[in-house]
Amino acid sequence: MTAVREFNFGAGMPDPATFPAQALADAAARVLPHHAMDLSKYPDRMGLPALRQIAADRFERNHGMRVPIENIVLTNGSMQGLMLVAQALAIQRKPLIVEEFTYVGTLNVFRKHQADLVPVPLDDQGMRVDALEEELDRLSAIGRTPTCIYTIASHQNPSGTTLPLDRREKLVELATKHQTVIVEDDCYADVQFTKHAVPAMYKLAEPGRVLYLGSFSKILGPGVRLGYFMAPEPLLSEMLSWKIDGGTSNLSALIVAEYFKEHLWSHIDEANAAVKQKLDTLLAALEHEFAGMDITWTKPDGGLFTWISLPAGTDRARVQALAKERGIVYATGQAFDSLNRDVPYLRLAYGFIANDDIPEGVRLLAECVKLSLPVGAGRR
Amino acid sequence: MTAVREFNFGAGMPDPATFPAQALADAAARVLPHHAMDLSKYPDRMGLPALRQIAADRFERNHGMRVPIENIVLTNGSMQGLMLVAQALAIQRKPLIVEEFTYVGTLNVFRKHQADLVPVPLDDQGMRVDALEEELDRLSAIGRTPTCIYTIASHQNPSGTTLPLDRREKLVELATKHQTVIVEDDCYADVQFTKHAVPAMYKLAEPGRVLYLGSFSKILGPGVRLGYFMAPEPLLSEMLSWKIDGGTSNLSALIVAEYFKEHLWSHIDEANAAVKQKLDTLLAALEHEFAGMDITWTKPDGGLFTWISLPAGTDRARVQALAKERGIVYATGQAFDSLNRDVPYLRLAYGFIANDDIPEGVRLLAECVKLSLPVGAGRR
Repeated sequence: MTAVREFNFGAGMPDPATFPAQALADAAARVLPHHAMDLSKYPDRMGLPALRQIAADRFERNHGMRVPIENIVLTNGSMQGLMLVAQALAIQRKPLIVEEFTYVGTLNVFRKHQADLVPVPLDDQGMRVDALEEELDRLSAIGRTPTCIYTIASHQNPSGTTLPLDRREKLVELATKHQTVIVEDDCYADVQFTKHAVPAMYKLAEPGRVLYLGSFSKILGPGVRLGYFMAPEPLLSEMLSWKIDGGTSNLSALIVAEYFKEHLWSHIDEANAAVKQKLDTLLAALEHEFAGMDITWTKPDGGLFTWISLPAGTDRARVQALAKERGIVYATGQAFDSLNRDVPYLRLAYGFIANDDIPEGVRLLAECVKLSLPVGAGRR
Repeated sequence: MTAVREFNFGAGMPDPATFPAQALADAAARVLPHHAMDLSKYPDRMGLPALRQIAADRFERNHGMRVPIENIVLTNGSMQGLMLVAQALAIQRKPLIVEEFTYVGTLNVFRKHQADLVPVPLDDQGMRVDALEEELDRLSAIGRTPTCIYTIASHQNPSGTTLPLDRREKLVELATKHQTVIVEDDCYADVQFTKHAVPAMYKLAEPGRVLYLGSFSKILGPGVRLGYFMAPEPLLSEMLSWKIDGGTSNLSALIVAEYFKEHLWSHIDEANAAVKQKLDTLLAALEHEFAGMDITWTKPDGGLFTWISLPAGTDRARVQALAKERGIVYATGQAFDSLNRDVPYLRLAYGFIANDDIPEGVRLLAECVKLSLPVGAGRR
């Protein structure tokens, strides 16, 4: 069997070529010899202060709001933050609002805790807040206030959409009216291709209305496993009471804090330039290969994903089987559907794959799709 | 206010002076530049193979049994393993057997999950298996098989006791008879002052009867946050299905694996020699300061703790207040009591405190105890 060339549009990972492996090695060599004590002890319950400081600096630079590090807790990636949300908010058998399509890892956490997921539709500007309002009114009428509204408002996974300011304000207003918490999963925030970020809801809302999840995985790399959450009391203590893991690694945090102390913004700029180039290559290839077909895709201004809508009758299983033969990895629409329906979408991640492989990967994918279209469909 | 000299007999931490900070820095400098890819991707679901290999080698050297790395999963310290136990075994409102006194972190996890804790008494050889048998029979008679038997069989926390082979065999026999799982928390196993370890129950029992929790925290340092569990299927998949944290840090695991590849056994020897010296100093000081009093303590042959039994009527709150004034940190008996009773014990940890501080710390502690004894007690 000949090894097939791989076109990995699968997981949401950054560009490995811009991963600062040598710079992290240098940071480790500088910082570790002076921290035998921090490594011999259990970490601070909230995590290494130096890295929480960097999370605070980052938020202040993006949103002009200073969050005290007493409201910031390091986690083993933002996924641990999400586990703590599920535990602290006791989501079992209660309504929990999500975007109709959302991150498969999030769905996994919420399903393991038996949340009653209530989807709200997305359009090209993220969650439809008019539909959210209806859903909240409906739940209110039956006395079932949701435990939270979970949203990836910026560079949403899988759709690549970003909720604009007016929708964020409306979302905050609705959450306040219905006395529920917004869980703002902002893990893609730093993968931003425009100059200014849309304001975080953590800034827009009254304290305690929003629980913010952040990550260092998407700008550095998921192998590092460092994220954080931000929340004021009493939410913070409720989350912390479930963080019974002995603390977040000081070994990782010392190294990453030492590196980011000098290089946070320059690394973000460099990493984003590489990923943006790949997105441009991808969008051009999609334009070229799917021209004239009844296929659409989102045009993200950040993040790691575009979401591709296929003609309704496309044989998705066949697309996948053919793609597999050609070494193409992508994520199916179904993986992201909050109700686990086989929806006519697929997600392409463009951070990890080499830029030069993108055109050929898209050409082959288009071939697979064309071979799987419903009779009479495809051309418009 | 004058700063008080601190005598830290508090947490179970290794000797900071033998922490290999420079060697870890060197390992990081060697290994990280070659692993941009491992750091840009999500870790293997089971954790970095190289470090799981070291866990397997370690177990084989100690117990003469080769565990395939497919049965070993890295965790964020053994505490994460314990959280997964609570989730995978669905311990809510069901009996769960523990040693009468056990690790406060364990109790916290089990209580957060509302387990119905069933204590079994300890003596100077660990869990009393005769009492365990009675307890299991009693539970069986009322149709309430426990979800598991949790035990720190080697160098128990807080008691410092080690379960001998015959009791281990009996424990395995009882668990098998009653069709329940033994959770063998072996996190202190490597802090061993005698040449040979008592065989692990993971080796003694049929596959699937024992779930093994291991740790690198006690030989390296808890700030590193790396542990592991070992289990065969289907237990392994049930545990893994709750490990929705995006994986255990490749950054930490790469560095620690690179260091341990060459230095595991030499580091264990060096670290244990330092800790053993402190234990000897502590035992001599206890002998000297508490001579002739109605006070006993355990004489561990490994681990990080001795467990001190005070006369029944000792005013424990007064001991603690006086100790605090003198800068002495220790853990109260109550912290470890599975039923949260204020029991007449205290735990001294001897890994972290400097050897030279031990005699003075014990002298001051004895002063506090003597000032808090019940009228007419103390001397025998």
